[in-house]
Amino acid sequence: MHESIDALSRGGGLAAWRQIADALEGEIATGDLAPGAQLPTEAALAARFSVNRHTVRRALATLAERGLIRASQGRGTFVEAAPLAYPIGRRTRFSEIVTGAGREPWGDLITHREIAAPPECAAMLAVPEGAPLLELLTVHRADGVPLSTARTWLPLPRFAGFAPAYERSGSITRALAACGVPDYTRASTRIRARLADPAEAARLDLTPGRVVIVVSSVNVDGEGVPVQANRAVFAADRVEVVVGT
Amino acid sequence: MHESIDALSRGGGLAAWRQIADALEGEIATGDLAPGAQLPTEAALAARFSVNRHTVRRALATLAERGLIRASQGRGTFVEAAPLAYPIGRRTRFSEIVTGAGREPWGDLITHREIAAPPECAAMLAVPEGAPLLELLTVHRADGVPLSTARTWLPLPRFAGFAPAYERSGSITRALAACGVPDYTRASTRIRARLADPAEAARLDLTPGRVVIVVSSVNVDGEGVPVQANRAVFAADRVEVVVGT
Repeated sequence: MHESIDALSRGGGLAAWRQIADALEGEIATGDLAPGAQLPTEAALAARFSVNRHTVRRALATLAERGLIRASQGRGTFVEAAPLAYPIGRRTRFSEIVTGAGREPWGDLITHREIAAPPECAAMLAVPEGAPLLELLTVHRADGVPLSTARTWLPLPRFAGFAPAYERSGSITRALAACGVPDYTRASTRIRARLADPAEAARLDLTPGRVVIVVSSVNVDGEGVPVQANRAVFAADRVEVVVGT
Repeated sequence: MHESIDALSRGGGLAAWRQIADALEGEIATGDLAPGAQLPTEAALAARFSVNRHTVRRALATLAERGLIRASQGRGTFVEAAPLAYPIGRRTRFSEIVTGAGREPWGDLITHREIAAPPECAAMLAVPEGAPLLELLTVHRADGVPLSTARTWLPLPRFAGFAPAYERSGSITRALAACGVPDYTRASTRIRARLADPAEAARLDLTPGRVVIVVSSVNVDGEGVPVQANRAVFAADRVEVVVGT
């Protein structure tokens, strides 16, 4: 345990919030604040550094903007964990990847609805434009931390029972099995990167201006028929995509 | 050809630079300003919109910050081209990918030097820490547009002749062949994304705050011996990484 820095230098030219941010960054770098650890409350940090909560909040905001900590609404503020190695191949399974990393996987169903296939989804699923699709909006977590938020499209009526099966199991693999698809493989994957939009940032506990990796993919059943098109938006700080190992 | 908007609305509440940016964005959206096309000079745009060059510069800056145009020092300002589909697999070859997309590939050697292998490079190349390595800093272009900037490491003395061979040919594949490696395959690829740092932004003609995709890879020779470790930083607006097709 390194000695913590609690006393701010007054009148030294460096603002109090900056000194607090530097002190916390140092503790993250040394591991005194470990990956995944919860930070003390704003009130506790304000007391420790003898400043008001507004000053603490500004220090935490700069650390969040740099991807060092993550503020989760109603749960607290946490040190970002080491990025998860996320292998992409013919048998990519979110649940298996997260479990294999010793973390607990879960998928939250945010909304679902029926839509008429727009051109891009129709092409991915090899159905006519305007064909009925089930669209799901989901958030995928590892130990409660959001790794990705995705839009998923499945042909109707074949997958009419998918949404309740997904809501029960929190797993695409199990929900596909419940719809009579015991196995599936990844037919194609396309990867881009950009800044998170505000809705994505909110679902991923990211401050605005953080980077996301956008992974678009198509899964096919045993006969090679597309069963699921997917556009997953990963918090870039939290994953490293691994190809071909 | 759509009718161009040259007359700005004065006193309407929308600043002149914003109206010019909106007009140019509209012309990019309709294709009147085609992907890859060179924009008129600042002086020509100032004359067209009857404003001073400072106002034009501000309009262009906002378009560059949003990744719609690219300012290339000393050459002009260009509409960003459609992103290049960049397949990653066992036989990934920059030259073949760019040529296949109908563009002209070239790699510029910026600097090269001998270094003692730091831990990460040593692990990638399966050599002892501190072993002599050749490090190259390169920029890879398609039709002159920088797609990526890379640091490449090769074991010494085996690849002592690599730098001049690369400088002559502009091709990793040809330079490896010149060093007695007629064929090589990709052993592993890891993909992350983040904001460009200032030096990367300058080499890639990016405004600060744009996103890059970082692709770390190892290539091995016919016997499976690592010959090259590579960390390539791609302008995220200019590529889409394709896996497994």
